[in-house]
This record gives sequence, C-alpha cells and structure tokens, in this order.
Amino acid sequence: MQLTQLKKEYEAWQAKKLALDMSRGKPGADQTALSDDLLEAKWVTPSKAENGMDCRNYGVPDGIPEAKRLFAELMGVPEDQVIVCGNASLSLMYDYLVQCMFQGATAELKPWAAQGAIKFLCPVPGYDRHFAILESLGIEMINVPMLADGPDMALVAEYVKDPLVKGLICVPKYSNPEGKTFSEAVVRAFAALRPAAPDFRVIWDNAYCVHDLYDTTDPLLNILDAAREAGTEDYFVTVTSFSKVSFPGAGVAAIAASPANTKAIKARMGIQTIGHDKLNQLRHVRYFRGMEGIKQHMQKHAAILRPKFEEVLGILERDLKGLADWTVPRGGYFISLDLPAGCAKRTHQLLKEAGVVLTPAGATFPYGKDPEDRNLRIAPTFPPTAELRQAAELLTLCARIAILENAANDSKTI
Amino acid sequence: MQLTQLKKEYEAWQAKKLALDMSRGKPGADQTALSDDLLEAKWVTPSKAENGMDCRNYGVPDGIPEAKRLFAELMGVPEDQVIVCGNASLSLMYDYLVQCMFQGATAELKPWAAQGAIKFLCPVPGYDRHFAILESLGIEMINVPMLADGPDMALVAEYVKDPLVKGLICVPKYSNPEGKTFSEAVVRAFAALRPAAPDFRVIWDNAYCVHDLYDTTDPLLNILDAAREAGTEDYFVTVTSFSKVSFPGAGVAAIAASPANTKAIKARMGIQTIGHDKLNQLRHVRYFRGMEGIKQHMQKHAAILRPKFEEVLGILERDLKGLADWTVPRGGYFISLDLPAGCAKRTHQLLKEAGVVLTPAGATFPYGKDPEDRNLRIAPTFPPTAELRQAAELLTLCARIAILENAANDSKTI
Repeated sequence: MQLTQLKKEYEAWQAKKLALDMSRGKPGADQTALSDDLLEAKWVTPSKAENGMDCRNYGVPDGIPEAKRLFAELMGVPEDQVIVCGNASLSLMYDYLVQCMFQGATAELKPWAAQGAIKFLCPVPGYDRHFAILESLGIEMINVPMLADGPDMALVAEYVKDPLVKGLICVPKYSNPEGKTFSEAVVRAFAALRPAAPDFRVIWDNAYCVHDLYDTTDPLLNILDAAREAGTEDYFVTVTSFSKVSFPGAGVAAIAASPANTKAIKARMGIQTIGHDKLNQLRHVRYFRGMEGIKQHMQKHAAILRPKFEEVLGILERDLKGLADWTVPRGGYFISLDLPAGCAKRTHQLLKEAGVVLTPAGATFPYGKDPEDRNLRIAPTFPPTAELRQAAELLTLCARIAILENAANDSKTI
Repeated sequence: MQLTQLKKEYEAWQAKKLALDMSRGKPGADQTALSDDLLEAKWVTPSKAENGMDCRNYGVPDGIPEAKRLFAELMGVPEDQVIVCGNASLSLMYDYLVQCMFQGATAELKPWAAQGAIKFLCPVPGYDRHFAILESLGIEMINVPMLADGPDMALVAEYVKDPLVKGLICVPKYSNPEGKTFSEAVVRAFAALRPAAPDFRVIWDNAYCVHDLYDTTDPLLNILDAAREAGTEDYFVTVTSFSKVSFPGAGVAAIAASPANTKAIKARMGIQTIGHDKLNQLRHVRYFRGMEGIKQHMQKHAAILRPKFEEVLGILERDLKGLADWTVPRGGYFISLDLPAGCAKRTHQLLKEAGVVLTPAGATFPYGKDPEDRNLRIAPTFPPTAELRQAAELLTLCARIAILENAANDSKTI
C-alpha cells in the first residue's frame, strides 16, 4: 500500500522528464567562476620565475621554485621533496604505480610485476578511479573496511605481513566518498606499519587537503612527518592538486615523498618530459600567493558548497532516518549513503529511469562490486541548488521504494 | 705551426670568458615573444568548447572538438584518429612506449617486455631524448644510418625480419639533428615494411611539421595515408606539438594513429587521466584559428631563425670547407656537423673550456656512443645573433684545432 503510493509519486517524477547529474565530483559553474581572474595575462607577465627561468621556454622539470614553495607549504613537506607537475594528480599516481609495477619503486628494487601476483589494500568505500588504475595494471585489490576514523588499521597491519601486499591507496582527508578524515591514531598506525615488502607504498591522495565546508578543518596529521619519526617515510607517496581549487583539468598537481622516492620519481620524469607547464604554475603561484590566499579562496567555494551539502543532508534526514545510514562530511565532495543490503543497485536503476544520473552502485568498491549492494555515492556539488533538491528528493523516494521492494522480497522468501 | 697559431687564437677567445649555449633546441626570447598575446584571457573567454563543455571543468579526455579538428588538419588525419593531450609530445611517446612494453601495443597483443630482449631501430644521428626513453625502458637500440633522403630502408627492411625488432623511432621532417626530410620513396618504403613482429611500431615524431626556414617547405608524404594504402597503418604512431609554435612546455601536443591504436591509447589514457588542460587547447585553437594562422605565425619564427642558420652555415663554409661535412637544413632546429673521425669529443671539450656549451659529442647516437666520434649537433636558435656568431667562430676554431691535433697523432702513430 505504502509502496503503491511511493510508486505513484515516482511516476509523477518520471513525467517531469528530468535530466539531472549527481554522479561526479565536479565543481559547479559558480565555483569555477571564482577563479576566472586567474586567466588574465597579468599573472604570467613578466614570465620569468624567481630563478630567472623564462616560463615560456623549456626547462625546470621539477617545477619553478615559487611553485615548489607553495606546494611545500600546502603539503607540509620540505621544498626539495616536492615535484610540481602538470594538471592532474591522477596521472601522477598512475605513472608512479606504473613505475613501481614495471621498473621498481626505486632503482635498487625489483619491479612489482616481477614478484608475482601482487596486491593492494583498498579502504572501502573508496574512489573508483583509484580502483580503475589498479585493475588496469593487474594489481589484485583487497577490501579493507573504513571505520569511523579511517581504515581498519589492525586488519591493514595483518595484511602487510604478506610480502605480495605492495601497498594501499587512500584519500586521507574528507575521503572519497565518505568525507571522513583519518584520526591521529590512524595516521600513526600507518607510520608504524612494518610491511614484509620493502617496496611497500601507500598512495596518500590528499585531494581535499584544503576543501573544508566549515570554518574549522578536520585536522590531519602529516603522514610524511609521522613516518619520518617512525623511520618509515619511504612507504608513503603523497599527491594533491588545484583541480578543485582553481579549474579541474587546468590546475596544477604535485607529488611529494621521501628523498629516495623523490629521486626515483624525478629520474623517471626526467626521461618522460622536458618539463611541465610552467606558465600555469606561475599563474597559480602569483594568483594564490600562499596558504592565506588559498584559504580565502576556499572559503568562497565553501560558501557555495555548504548549502548544497546541507540541502541533501536535510532531505536524507527527513526521508531516510532509521532506514539508511549516511555520512555528514565537513569537507570534500561527497556524501556516502549506506542503504539496507541489496538496495543500492535498484535505487540507482530507479533514479536512472527517472532521469537522475548517480555514480553506479558498486563503483565505490574494487571491481565495481559492493559485496552487500549497499553503498551509493552522492555528489552534490555540480547541480544548481534547485536541481540538486529535486535529485535528492527523487533519490530518497527511489531508496524508499527499493527498501520496501526488498523487504517484500525478503518476506516472500521466508 | 698552423696549430700553434690556432691555439693562440683559442687562448684569446678563452680570455673573453664567454658563457654561450648552443646545446638545446630552444627558441630564443624573441620567438617566444611572438606568442605573448596568446596569454590574454580573451582567448578562453567564454570558456565553452563548441560541444558545450566548459573548458574550466572536468571532461573530454581526448581533446575538445575544435582542437581535434586543428590537429587533424595539421597532422593530415581524420579527427577521430587524433587525441589532443597536454603540453609534451615527449610524454606521449614515453607513455605509449611504456604501454607497448608492459601492457602490449593493443589489448590482444603480448607486452613487448614479455617477449624477450626486444630491439628498436634508431636512425643515426638522431634525437638524444628518444634514445634516453628507449634506454630507460631497457630496449636495445640498433643504429641505422641516415642517408641523404632518410634512413637506409633496405637495412631497415632486413632488420624487421627479426620478430624481436619491435619498432623504430624517427623525426621524419627536418630531422633532429640533420634537418633532413624523408623522401616520398622512403615514406613508401616505411609503409611497405612487412615486419615479422605483428606489434611492430614506428614512432613518427613529426616535431617540425610546420617549422620551415624558407617560403617553400620540404614536402613529407603522410605516413598514415601511405600506410593505409599499403595495409600497414597499425605500424605507425605519429605525434606533434605546439612546443616550437607557441611556448615550449606550455603548448599543446597530440598523438594520431590507426583506429586500433587510437582505441588502445584512449583506453590507457582514460585510466591515466580525467582529461588534459582544455583551457590551453581552447586558447591555442582560438589564437591560431587554423592552418593558415599557424603558417603565418611560423613565418615570423622563420624570419628570426633563417639569419641565424645562415650565419652559422656561412662560418662553417668559410672555415671548414673541405675539412668537414654539414647539413644545410631548410627547417627544424639543428645543423648536423660531421668532423673527421675522432674529432667530435675533442672539439666539444675545447669549446667547453672556452665557455661554449654544445650538446655532448655522442649524444646524437644511442647510448651516447658515436662509433666514429664524428658528429656534433649545432643548435643555432637560442643565442642572440651576436653570441651565436662568436659561438660558431669558436666552434670552427676548435674543430680545426681538433682536426690538426688528430692528424698530428695519426702521423705519429704511422
């Protein structure tokens, strides 16, 4: 009876022939407009970096000094451990994993691929593009549950006793999709790992390092500091980018790691390229000036994003309380929704048939397989607020239909 | 006696304490200034590509449509066989070779690395950064002499009977360092190759496709057309870039290949990145407009470069006639100087000790080993003309010293 009512509501939505997209972590047009001034020629005029190199010409493969300084501050690492690169941290991770896989993490170490069927630990739910990289390289992925304050580190510590477990990939702050930030205890547990593999590497994708929704940030202990203290800094490679600070696809990305790893990455990169886009580095450095400038800019993003997150969270609270679980992130780009087991795919399908695109159910797990078919990733940033509200209302409606259908099926099978 | 005189002249030069650089194929500051207007915001305002995608946001991994059209015209290939990428064709070649080596040229083919000690053919003299890529990947390099109109294709046809010979890397137009353009017969001989390896790949680095010094161009037959006719198009992968059209390091590069190869490259790239810098693509398309705009722009480069090339060539003609051989390029970035055997390293050393940096002797050969120690690469583009003249005069002086010393040694050993 309740299901019949909900389905009627659903049909009314379908009749609206919506075309809404809540699938990807893209900034909205009002957010990218915040950086429009960055496109002015003044930021690259004159075009010489502070070391005298003309950014309009070849050279400086590891980044202009002022860009290294900016990223060193942003990432909390010494300048000589930062390599400032092109537009995408995803490429930095991909290229680094390819290097480890086929040439070895450092010149002294055997390629991972020459050591057998190697494995990576994947905190779940996680980021589909991370998993796609690992899968494409033939690296076996092992799910590790995310707990309230980060991955289940007791389990991780167990897994790394296997020398074929070569690493772990994660988003430590405002994680994708849950928006969780690893606690100090979790970060210290990472630093304290004693993996059997000497070439164990954690890819620390700090994509949302300054992407707060509120005035106070979720503090994240610096992994390279903690690891240095623990004598394990070679196990950690960190990346970040300006993709969701300035322009996705036209920002600047950087990779930071221990001296040994930095050396290995630079050695490969020195063969791979003559240098990255220094004009875009210069543009970003002069526009953002430093951490203070970045923070002020991110507050403008937050002012746009906060109401969107709160809108969706309010609708979840109103419609799904007691029926499902979700995270309440204080930063990042996503909300993670956990439905009763067996309901995620059906909810996704119903949404699709009503014109709302959501990240596919299962995408937040390796191989696209959510073992319990529970998790959905909500990306509230891109749609304008009015569309977002419609999409969220339709989402909770579809979720309730799926839950009721599921319960009905369950009772049938009893 | 003549040597004594030359050495006196050399000492006089040394006293000048010069610091000149004729080593790399970098445009001069007057050349990069030609594109300064490209840095204005007007070229990316409004920022939507013609398919409606906002270039300030994620998406379009293979390039915006108008950029694909521009490169399709530039490279003479169908738009759907072009992938417009980031700033560097070197990275495109590196990444492609890594893909072939470790994952296979296409999904159906075994990785090169899994097939034994594979080899590449390297027309010599050639480009040191090409050789560095192959060496870093552990690919054995085999020298193939450049003849007047391209590589010795009879020899190439012999070598490719070996299934471990997996490819060849070359600059077909205004070759680096000789400035030679492959004749129609040579290009057709490439297309007619019937290699034993089904995953044979020629990396066709068309870096200087529009880089003429004179009003008429050295015609280059389109390899993908010729290969399509011959049924061998999967053997050829071509790249080019705007590095020496607009800004080295801040231009746009593209890769074009057969449908099967394009598909394989896109499949890998779709994992490696969410997308390249579309704002820079848009900027270039709107600024250069089309082939006519590119040609007009390249004429301005030629007007700056032609006198520099002619200056150096005049000094070579005046001082080294009958003593050495050199090429007289009609485009590109280099002049190739062939000294008598055993004289290149010594000339390089003498130059260095007088403050002139030249590409190291041997660099134009795989493993940095010029078997006869004859070849030097002259890069006349970067120094201002007055400095270039000094550098060239010192070069011919050092060459003459080396030649005389060498002759004296030879007579001693008789």
